Amino acid sequence: MTKADGQRGSPTSYDVAQRAGVSQSAVSRCFRPGSSIAPKTRERVLSAARELDYHPNAMASGLITRKSNLVAVIISNLTNLYYPEVLAELTRRLSDRGIRVLLFALQAESEVDAMLDQVWRYRVDGAIVAARLTPAHLRDFARHNVPVVLYNRFGEGEPVASVGCDSVGGERQLIDRLNAAGHAVFGIISGPEDNYVGQERVRGAQQRLEELGHRSLLVRGEFDYESGATGLRALMEMTDRRLDAVICANDLMAIGAIDCARETFGLRIPHDLSVVGFDGVAPAMWASYRVSTIRQPVRRMTEAAVAMLMERIADPDLPPEVRTFAGKLIDGMSARFVS
Amino acid sequence: MTKADGQRGSPTSYDVAQRAGVSQSAVSRCFRPGSSIAPKTRERVLSAARELDYHPNAMASGLITRKSNLVAVIISNLTNLYYPEVLAELTRRLSDRGIRVLLFALQAESEVDAMLDQVWRYRVDGAIVAARLTPAHLRDFARHNVPVVLYNRFGEGEPVASVGCDSVGGERQLIDRLNAAGHAVFGIISGPEDNYVGQERVRGAQQRLEELGHRSLLVRGEFDYESGATGLRALMEMTDRRLDAVICANDLMAIGAIDCARETFGLRIPHDLSVVGFDGVAPAMWASYRVSTIRQPVRRMTEAAVAMLMERIADPDLPPEVRTFAGKLIDGMSARFVS
Repeated sequence: MTKADGQRGSPTSYDVAQRAGVSQSAVSRCFRPGSSIAPKTRERVLSAARELDYHPNAMASGLITRKSNLVAVIISNLTNLYYPEVLAELTRRLSDRGIRVLLFALQAESEVDAMLDQVWRYRVDGAIVAARLTPAHLRDFARHNVPVVLYNRFGEGEPVASVGCDSVGGERQLIDRLNAAGHAVFGIISGPEDNYVGQERVRGAQQRLEELGHRSLLVRGEFDYESGATGLRALMEMTDRRLDAVICANDLMAIGAIDCARETFGLRIPHDLSVVGFDGVAPAMWASYRVSTIRQPVRRMTEAAVAMLMERIADPDLPPEVRTFAGKLIDGMSARFVS
Repeated sequence: MTKADGQRGSPTSYDVAQRAGVSQSAVSRCFRPGSSIAPKTRERVLSAARELDYHPNAMASGLITRKSNLVAVIISNLTNLYYPEVLAELTRRLSDRGIRVLLFALQAESEVDAMLDQVWRYRVDGAIVAARLTPAHLRDFARHNVPVVLYNRFGEGEPVASVGCDSVGGERQLIDRLNAAGHAVFGIISGPEDNYVGQERVRGAQQRLEELGHRSLLVRGEFDYESGATGLRALMEMTDRRLDAVICANDLMAIGAIDCARETFGLRIPHDLSVVGFDGVAPAMWASYRVSTIRQPVRRMTEAAVAMLMERIADPDLPPEVRTFAGKLIDGMSARFVS
């Protein structure tokens, strides 16, 4: 009869050492990733641990090794259709490396301060952040010796490790295709005011339109379905319904704009109006939409983010690095492109 | 000049006690939720902590208080459109109570064992689980004294605290409406084989159809868009295209079925074919679909799950309780209902 069966209270590493006939330090080494231990000793320890139903206390080991094997993942807009895929990929890749995810889902960017206090308390080994951090926040990470990798965000003046998709390059591809197909009256639906990625996409689109001699109208969106519809209505009004193409800063707004164009204005997409998005989320591929868009290489990007963070946990003095991935043009059915 | 500015290494509770002119135990009490401390002492401690940039070590406190303030949230299918909302709500509600989420995203139900080992290691205070647990897993939770609340899953023989939406009642409402409107040839697209909620929904639909004297055809789905489309094609073939209504075990499959019905078979929805779903996810409300469905009361359900878990963390001997919420019928545009 094992101790776990017989009495309440968890077995300790001492119990395991006794049963395996090894030292307590051998038990500790056995459960510490990267420690060296003879295969035979390891086998005896694992077998004793199984018999006793022993699970090393991650918090106690964390205090000793100063590694919690926890990484904070901080996401500001979890219900945005793009992020569930990112979160699932990050969690899987970290888990493959024996790291657990401490999740922080922000409702508003203003919650960052209260959240960071919790991040410090849990002594996370590092953080992957898809939320806006100020240079002051980034200096806090440095002061607390917590390596950070930004995901689709950038340092805004403070050099910091980050992974992103090339917004400007992606928009240029979309605009070039629209321009080649003869579109002349362009409207843009932006992202939320404080969203860096949204701003970059708008900047990329405006810049390229200007280079090609086009003017464009801009309305504010919020990255959601409703603001895509509202944005389209505003642009139709502003152009006296003479709109050729709508550039939406993400797919979800493109979907809202397509639905509104069909339902409110009776337009055929793309015959009467071209709509382009950005991200390549699953619903953008559904038959009712088939959005012409730029697909972010989420697997490559999440793998890069995790790899960069692991490198920086191992060596905090690595210099900041920015890795930018090109998105893939998806030649959908929502825009007239010249093939 | 504060210590944090002057030298590497975090300030300790001893440093804070010294600066505030109080005992170390007063500092500990100040940062322990629910401890009593005089308001004036509290103010002095917090002010000293701010000046020193002190953040209590959650792992060290966890070892002393035997509370990690961590809750494991275990979700088996994070990219299912339904779960991001659930996860965001759970995270927010736990965070409001000073609890952090340790996230476990399962790719396959078979990963449960490896994952539970990690759950024990982090000495979580409790767990909310939206993944299939066997009775043996549930006994593991009991043995490790980790209270668990199941979300849209049930104990399968083992009594366990759980929160769910009434699948059978929801399907009955949908079937009754379809029946009243004169539908006669019914097809059902189920969820994945091992999914309890999917099974319950199918059982509810079949039972009610039988009571009303209808036969129905059943095809297997996987809760995703593609299997909704594939399922519809199979049902059309099986009925020689004489299908009146398709009952999909979730919205995402209903969306796939609607797109396929329109595109592959040229059907008008709901004129030629009624399609109903379950969940009430955001895309089901989009103008291209307006799925007639049962909306799960996610806010009520997540609030109940968190409240039930907190009660059980405070008093592990509370008896298991099952809370079932009725879903709300959404009278969309994808089914002919009699109003």
